[in-house]
Amino acid sequence: MSDQPLRLGLAGLGAVGGSVARLVAERAAEFATRYGKRPIAAAYSARSQGLRGLPLEGAAYFSNAVEMAASAEIDVFIELIGGAEGVALDAVRAALARGVSVVTANKAMLAAHGLELAALAERGGATLAFEAAVGGGVPVIKTLREALAGNRITRVSGILNGTCNYILSRMEGERLPFDVCLKEAQRLGYAEADPTFDIGGFDTAHKIAILASLAFGHAVDAEGVSVEGIETITLADLMAADDLGFRIKLLGVAARTDHGVETRVHPTMVAKSSSLAQTMGVLNAVTIDGDAIGSLTLVGPGAGGAATASAVLADIADIARGASALAFGRPAAALSAPERASIQRHEGGYYVRFSVLDRPGAMATIAGRMAERAISLESIVQKRAEGDARDHVPVVMVSHATSETAIREAVAMTLQDGVIREKPQIIRIERT
Amino acid sequence: MSDQPLRLGLAGLGAVGGSVARLVAERAAEFATRYGKRPIAAAYSARSQGLRGLPLEGAAYFSNAVEMAASAEIDVFIELIGGAEGVALDAVRAALARGVSVVTANKAMLAAHGLELAALAERGGATLAFEAAVGGGVPVIKTLREALAGNRITRVSGILNGTCNYILSRMEGERLPFDVCLKEAQRLGYAEADPTFDIGGFDTAHKIAILASLAFGHAVDAEGVSVEGIETITLADLMAADDLGFRIKLLGVAARTDHGVETRVHPTMVAKSSSLAQTMGVLNAVTIDGDAIGSLTLVGPGAGGAATASAVLADIADIARGASALAFGRPAAALSAPERASIQRHEGGYYVRFSVLDRPGAMATIAGRMAERAISLESIVQKRAEGDARDHVPVVMVSHATSETAIREAVAMTLQDGVIREKPQIIRIERT
Repeated sequence: MSDQPLRLGLAGLGAVGGSVARLVAERAAEFATRYGKRPIAAAYSARSQGLRGLPLEGAAYFSNAVEMAASAEIDVFIELIGGAEGVALDAVRAALARGVSVVTANKAMLAAHGLELAALAERGGATLAFEAAVGGGVPVIKTLREALAGNRITRVSGILNGTCNYILSRMEGERLPFDVCLKEAQRLGYAEADPTFDIGGFDTAHKIAILASLAFGHAVDAEGVSVEGIETITLADLMAADDLGFRIKLLGVAARTDHGVETRVHPTMVAKSSSLAQTMGVLNAVTIDGDAIGSLTLVGPGAGGAATASAVLADIADIARGASALAFGRPAAALSAPERASIQRHEGGYYVRFSVLDRPGAMATIAGRMAERAISLESIVQKRAEGDARDHVPVVMVSHATSETAIREAVAMTLQDGVIREKPQIIRIERT
Repeated sequence: MSDQPLRLGLAGLGAVGGSVARLVAERAAEFATRYGKRPIAAAYSARSQGLRGLPLEGAAYFSNAVEMAASAEIDVFIELIGGAEGVALDAVRAALARGVSVVTANKAMLAAHGLELAALAERGGATLAFEAAVGGGVPVIKTLREALAGNRITRVSGILNGTCNYILSRMEGERLPFDVCLKEAQRLGYAEADPTFDIGGFDTAHKIAILASLAFGHAVDAEGVSVEGIETITLADLMAADDLGFRIKLLGVAARTDHGVETRVHPTMVAKSSSLAQTMGVLNAVTIDGDAIGSLTLVGPGAGGAATASAVLADIADIARGASALAFGRPAAALSAPERASIQRHEGGYYVRFSVLDRPGAMATIAGRMAERAISLESIVQKRAEGDARDHVPVVMVSHATSETAIREAVAMTLQDGVIREKPQIIRIERT
């Protein structure tokens, strides 16, 4: 076999970029044998020129990533800068416009500009690859785009944010409140100083928007994702879930419905026996349902330098052997307009936790409001009031399948009726 | 995009072949959009010409699959006949020799002739694809070969036979003996009338031999696999495993060791908390360990017409877009000779269940034999003798890591010492 170089330009030398540099050096000879092309780090761009102990001795340094993307010294631009706009976007556009292939882990950029960049890549005959953008090391992109190509996908649901899963796992496992677990996650480097992007569900929203595009063949539609974070989840909810045979996970879900594609991110009750429920700590897991496969689940590391670099190397391998798929698995022009199914039309089971005022007729009023909306209840658990909160009792109701509108209206009415102390906690149940 | 036909020849119209025919018809238009090629069932071969309600109206019938493979009417030969030799092998050879690509689910043939067929495919510029041969619908081939290309794989371990997993799951779940569960599996169509191939571990051996080749880059070496089946597993073992925090699964394992690659199939103790332990019933699961990814697990349907057809369609999709990988992920000439690590050199924990004769000094003798071989014990559980077996007591020992030779020698000595009633049950423990 020939031993042609595949010249990589690495933009960003953080944990992922450093791991990519090391792995490329370690695997270069094997890739040459397997694919006839030897990947080399021909150039890099970072805040400073220091090599950080990485095997980048022969690589040209660019202080400006956009200049590196536009230079004739690279065949593949590896974008590990991050951010939906700015340098990352400018550099990726510059590379693709020149027909230079791009490998990126940048879900925010893809969520915002996926269609434009996919079209740009096609025009230039370049590859736009992003296995590392969703699920870290878990190869969910290749699986959806290639391995399940024979399926009509009906649903993708997953734990796509390790920070949230770590927090929920610790809360449940050690009966600790949200704030304590968030601080612990920050201390361990699992959560940012400003954790909003993760715990608010926005990171998961970007990821599920990308997966929905691959699964259903529509243009990425991050704005169509209904998003709720985990900030409101209390220990009381986790313990009630446990009693009922559930765990609470922050899921990204994209599902075909009669009204279009429903994409949503929210804390979700999942049966303890499901693969998703059993995914604890910083792991990610994705379950894909299709007409032929039935159900397939992938579980693995959703973050970390080496694991994410594994995904980047997979994209490089595809480029080296000349076998990259189209960015979203089909021509950009064939991506349909997203047909959004409003979350208001969501149908499913619901968990509702009320603080019911301890007075005669309160429960009857609530049950009556549920009945008015034709909501049938699977279980009602009333616990004894504890501590100094003697004037109200916690009540948890689990409904059979009903509509989002019905449950929201019924709950709003109970608030107006003055029989509950505060806005109830509502958590959707997913039958995975 | 163009809309060129991709003419498929289907050999075998059983459950998988029928599902492939249906899926091809259903996905033809979408494949044309995505890949520029429209798959059509141009020919088929089966015992009789009847269409079986399948969308094969325009397809040419061949009573002889080898003739179909050699005909000019097809671009891709889909081999779903089965059997390591005979018609399947002749037809695949005929197709590849002509440069016609082959998609096959035939693990027995690949285990026996993988290297020859891979080389033949390369010479003819054809694809040899076999996602359906291992794991049914679970895309473990593509994952190992492409998605984890950046990793140095250290271990592949998996539940690769749904029949065995079904039997073990039922035995454990319902406390039923092996024979009853085997009969139930046969009644439900999960086991053949002659179940030896499945329960003896031979099917799993073929599959792990194929995965080992992909993982470690050596020629398929089915003869190098050490094989034990599940016939000797008793309810007592499953219950003892449960007490100790384990489940017993028939695993195929391929692992790098200091002595070479160890490939083995045997009933295995796996921690209940592991993904493999949680895989119940006819599902398959594979865990792949690599230096960058850490650990990745795939769980899904390991058999069934539609799920296996999903894997066949994935291979067809890759062929349609001109992106098939080399059969074993690298040129056949670059596949090394397998470097077998003997099972005698296996190192790990062991579960040993003895029937110890109820006489003074018996336990001391056994413990002494273990100590002589420097085997350190993690736990010893002696249960009260039950029923009419009052002359001996069941004793379960779990060892820390030791060598296969040491444990076998120690156990053989206890037999010679005359302190145990019968050959003890020995089950390897896998730290997954």
